[in-house]
Amino acid sequence: MGRASKREEIAEAAFRQFHARGFSATGINDITKAAGVPKGSFYNHFSSKEESALEALSRYADTLRFDMLTSPDLPPLERLRAHFEYLSRDTVDNGFVRGCLVGNFGAEVADHNEEIRTAAKRGFDGWADRLSRLLAEAQEAGDLDGSLGTVATALFILSAWEGTLIAARVDKSMAPFDAFFQTVFDRILR
Amino acid sequence: MGRASKREEIAEAAFRQFHARGFSATGINDITKAAGVPKGSFYNHFSSKEESALEALSRYADTLRFDMLTSPDLPPLERLRAHFEYLSRDTVDNGFVRGCLVGNFGAEVADHNEEIRTAAKRGFDGWADRLSRLLAEAQEAGDLDGSLGTVATALFILSAWEGTLIAARVDKSMAPFDAFFQTVFDRILR
Repeated sequence: MGRASKREEIAEAAFRQFHARGFSATGINDITKAAGVPKGSFYNHFSSKEESALEALSRYADTLRFDMLTSPDLPPLERLRAHFEYLSRDTVDNGFVRGCLVGNFGAEVADHNEEIRTAAKRGFDGWADRLSRLLAEAQEAGDLDGSLGTVATALFILSAWEGTLIAARVDKSMAPFDAFFQTVFDRILR
Repeated sequence: MGRASKREEIAEAAFRQFHARGFSATGINDITKAAGVPKGSFYNHFSSKEESALEALSRYADTLRFDMLTSPDLPPLERLRAHFEYLSRDTVDNGFVRGCLVGNFGAEVADHNEEIRTAAKRGFDGWADRLSRLLAEAQEAGDLDGSLGTVATALFILSAWEGTLIAARVDKSMAPFDAFFQTVFDRILR
């Protein structure tokens, strides 16, 4: 394996380990073992566990399929539903584990690490901005009550999504997802 | 310090440490140091870190002031608002840290520890039941749309609350709380 691909293997393994185990429970050893590289090689590519966690957040963001929110094939609110249905499948298909890496780091690490908190904030802010623009588009199309505050509603829906993932992992059931789709689409965005 | 009060000191210190640091980042040493007792004394009172975490969940539940949800002095929806306003103050007054211990363990530990997941599930279920009964009471009083599904709405509001706490810690701002109160009370429960 060349230098670039070894870095890639380690970065991807770090992302998978942080997502599955959390930040504190993941040791450098877990990462290098999962990547199939010697433990010492981690520090050839990353200065610290924190640095690999920051890259994991960026890799996680790339899995969120934000392109679904702007696809021209569906009306805005149907795109929103498809986006969250797509995201729910990752949790369901894996047996109700892992959830959202941004929310997990928010719950576990944000209080203790300013760089990770800032990266998580950037992740949430970018996501909420995309949701807010979609809601404004739905208002312009006449599909959504024009008096609804799109910024606060987008922030609320994203927060609700994060809590829904936790509730689904704790309950190991679809009930929190069902409650999310029902309340968001039949009540908030009606 | 007698035997009973030493156990109490350790249990309380464990609760505080888990709430502040999370499960994996809290060592037995952190707990006994915070309690001001010798490290070895932990195992005179608890068989494992997990056992002290289960007791921490129970201690946390005792801080949630569920009595506010059934107080006869206010109409149901005003009690609901007062309950979440009370809870938001713990996070705000502490500089946007700590959040909810049930949600934190849900995000960090539920995937990996069946006993803690079950205890967190019991915590969420009991809380959602109380919220659901309050919503049914509001419907009976004519203060809430009778067609609203109280069980799903209660579960959704609790999930949204958990995510709101994470968003507030990540953002270190009131914005997620403001969005929660605005959407829950002006949109979902109108």
